[in-house]
Amino acid sequence: MEKARVEAFSDGVLAIAITLLILEIRVPEPEALNGAGLAHYLGQQWSSYAAYLLSFAVIGIMWVNHHAIFQAVARVDRTLLLLNLHLLLWIAFLPFPTALVARYFRRGYDAGVAMAVYSGVMFVIGLSFQLLWRWITRDDRLLHGHIDQPQAHARATRFGLGLGVYLAAVGLSFLSAFATLILHFLMAGYYVVDQLAVGGQAPDRA
Amino acid sequence: MEKARVEAFSDGVLAIAITLLILEIRVPEPEALNGAGLAHYLGQQWSSYAAYLLSFAVIGIMWVNHHAIFQAVARVDRTLLLLNLHLLLWIAFLPFPTALVARYFRRGYDAGVAMAVYSGVMFVIGLSFQLLWRWITRDDRLLHGHIDQPQAHARATRFGLGLGVYLAAVGLSFLSAFATLILHFLMAGYYVVDQLAVGGQAPDRA
Amino acid sequence: MEKARVEAFSDGVLAIAITLLILEIRVPEPEALNGAGLAHYLGQQWSSYAAYLLSFAVIGIMWVNHHAIFQAVARVDRTLLLLNLHLLLWIAFLPFPTALVARYFRRGYDAGVAMAVYSGVMFVIGLSFQLLWRWITRDDRLLHGHIDQPQAHARATRFGLGLGVYLAAVGLSFLSAFATLILHFLMAGYYVVDQLAVGGQAPDRA
Amino acid sequence: MEKARVEAFSDGVLAIAITLLILEIRVPEPEALNGAGLAHYLGQQWSSYAAYLLSFAVIGIMWVNHHAIFQAVARVDRTLLLLNLHLLLWIAFLPFPTALVARYFRRGYDAGVAMAVYSGVMFVIGLSFQLLWRWITRDDRLLHGHIDQPQAHARATRFGLGLGVYLAAVGLSFLSAFATLILHFLMAGYYVVDQLAVGGQAPDRA
Repeated sequence: MEKARVEAFSDGVLAIAITLLILEIRVPEPEALNGAGLAHYLGQQWSSYAAYLLSFAVIGIMWVNHHAIFQAVARVDRTLLLLNLHLLLWIAFLPFPTALVARYFRRGYDAGVAMAVYSGVMFVIGLSFQLLWRWITRDDRLLHGHIDQPQAHARATRFGLGLGVYLAAVGLSFLSAFATLILHFLMAGYYVVDQLAVGGQAPDRA
Repeated sequence: MEKARVEAFSDGVLAIAITLLILEIRVPEPEALNGAGLAHYLGQQWSSYAAYLLSFAVIGIMWVNHHAIFQAVARVDRTLLLLNLHLLLWIAFLPFPTALVARYFRRGYDAGVAMAVYSGVMFVIGLSFQLLWRWITRDDRLLHGHIDQPQAHARATRFGLGLGVYLAAVGLSFLSAFATLILHFLMAGYYVVDQLAVGGQAPDRA
Repeated sequence: MEKARVEAFSDGVLAIAITLLILEIRVPEPEALNGAGLAHYLGQQWSSYAAYLLSFAVIGIMWVNHHAIFQAVARVDRTLLLLNLHLLLWIAFLPFPTALVARYFRRGYDAGVAMAVYSGVMFVIGLSFQLLWRWITRDDRLLHGHIDQPQAHARATRFGLGLGVYLAAVGLSFLSAFATLILHFLMAGYYVVDQLAVGGQAPDRA
Repeated sequence: MEKARVEAFSDGVLAIAITLLILEIRVPEPEALNGAGLAHYLGQQWSSYAAYLLSFAVIGIMWVNHHAIFQAVARVDRTLLLLNLHLLLWIAFLPFPTALVARYFRRGYDAGVAMAVYSGVMFVIGLSFQLLWRWITRDDRLLHGHIDQPQAHARATRFGLGLGVYLAAVGLSFLSAFATLILHFLMAGYYVVDQLAVGGQAPDRA
């Protein structure tokens, strides 16, 4: 019951954050088109669509991931509650760097700044997932049955690799915002495929 | 349980998207009325109300539809999860073309562009429903009991007809934005009546 | 189960609409204060707080009301589903007239226009509740056990009286926006007291 | 069941309010940077991040708190329903003073005004929690089993101390907005630690 309410609250925050992303795609005032057609304007703001697509995929994956983590949880303690809120704080923050990327991607040096902020937030989100996972799997107190420590460790290590990539992405942002954007899409794609690779299995067996 | 969480998350996204639509109806700054009264301004932005009404109906129908689809589902696998997220990505996108229609409907050529984007998004949403439905009914693995393949096929075909109409609507947009808007209302009305025609039946028997 | 999902979706829309109201209270840009202090500005926009308070109360009451209605429901059919969506369409619309009142209340004739729109929407919401209630209590098909027709009728009549007041409020708006605002607060207060008068009873016995 | 719906609605409002906070962090228009870089702009709006962090923590704590209170509740009456709506009204209001602090924190006297409004709203939220708690624990009618009156009283007293601090914070705001912000962070930190101090216990035993 307790756990169900934490899951419901988390799902709520994730569902709202993912749906708020659309507010970052701007509808131009007719006067702001400066004589160019709407079609031309819509074509020009492709970085907004890319940012929407990326962040929607990212939050969607996080939702699946969050869900998989909570499958293992039997009991919720205060620390878990706080680590979960900490994670939500950063996921709920994501619409902001998404909007930065959407608006500054074709703006020279500032594109790099925007991508670096985005990459940095992704790094911190990864770290927050890591903290949550480590607390849950620290021992058997919060878990259904006994935890397979090597497997939990392997999962933490894989999370850790992702962290390294996001950290590298912060640096890469200043070299090439475009390459960094591609890297984020590849990471999202990897996580999707990785989760699919678990097979046609239901997530509760993941 | 698993399925319940997918439904809850989907319902959350749909409920948020449908409620965010109202943000697209603009409240003018008093200074922006240029001496004309508020009543005059409110009368002029009728396309905003039409767009709100249309998209509210559309998302409402999709919610009923989504619900009917998940009635058949017994198990959720990763592919279903991803196809569902893909569907939500496009539904959550709908407030954007809605705002385009609201603001550009009385703007000559750009009205056509706005309606074409709206129609295109509706087409892609239809496609996403189609993909989801086909995956679910591919065989019996995800279903409650045995699936009636001819009936599932009939349903997919009916979905397919809708797709054709939305595709035609993209083209029609450039000929007459007004006719396209009417067409969308007719489609929404058709789906409402079609669902009512199933009778006073509870949806779980639909 | 079916009914639970309709309730959850409705609760979602109501919760979002009630929480979105805050977006209508403006945070002024520092440059827009024109030398006057923030305190002075905040004092001046009292109509925004009044509108927030009123609409929050109104949606809160509607939530209680919606809940009380669904207590009686045992089965959900398509018509009920559509009448419920129709009701939600108008409740989700409420943030717009709320913002109109907030921004135009001290603007002479336009204040009357804003209040008339608000009153009109309240009238339509009342009508939508009426439709929903009449469909549900038409006969026993959708109900838990047998319905007490005289009591259901009495309730419909009381709803009807509210409708009359809201219609009168539309006219009153053009005579005095202030009196109309007071009337809306009185109506909200009446419904709160009316519901309290049912006693310390749990709503499920209301 | 009844109680579950009140909790779900409350969770919904809290989840939306906490996620809407991000909308207060502004994404500057490229033209508004005035030649300075994006990085410089982002660095300058640190008060926005501080306000986001503070209010996220505050609403998160309130969610945990709300949850702990409802653990004790067995039955919901109308008064409880209204006191709960009253509490939600003020929590849903929080994004507004948060935005005030974000935008006015480095603006001399107006920073004090913004912090005073924030502190005042926190005071009223505390009061609303107090009212809710006192109504619930007034006697045993709404509770699971018998209430430990001294313990319930001790809790109310602790709530009361917090109220005193928030009231003092209103005054302090005009002396030093910065000190007041620190005070709010300390209060949030205290509540987090206080809740952690209950131990590794599950909240349902708190």
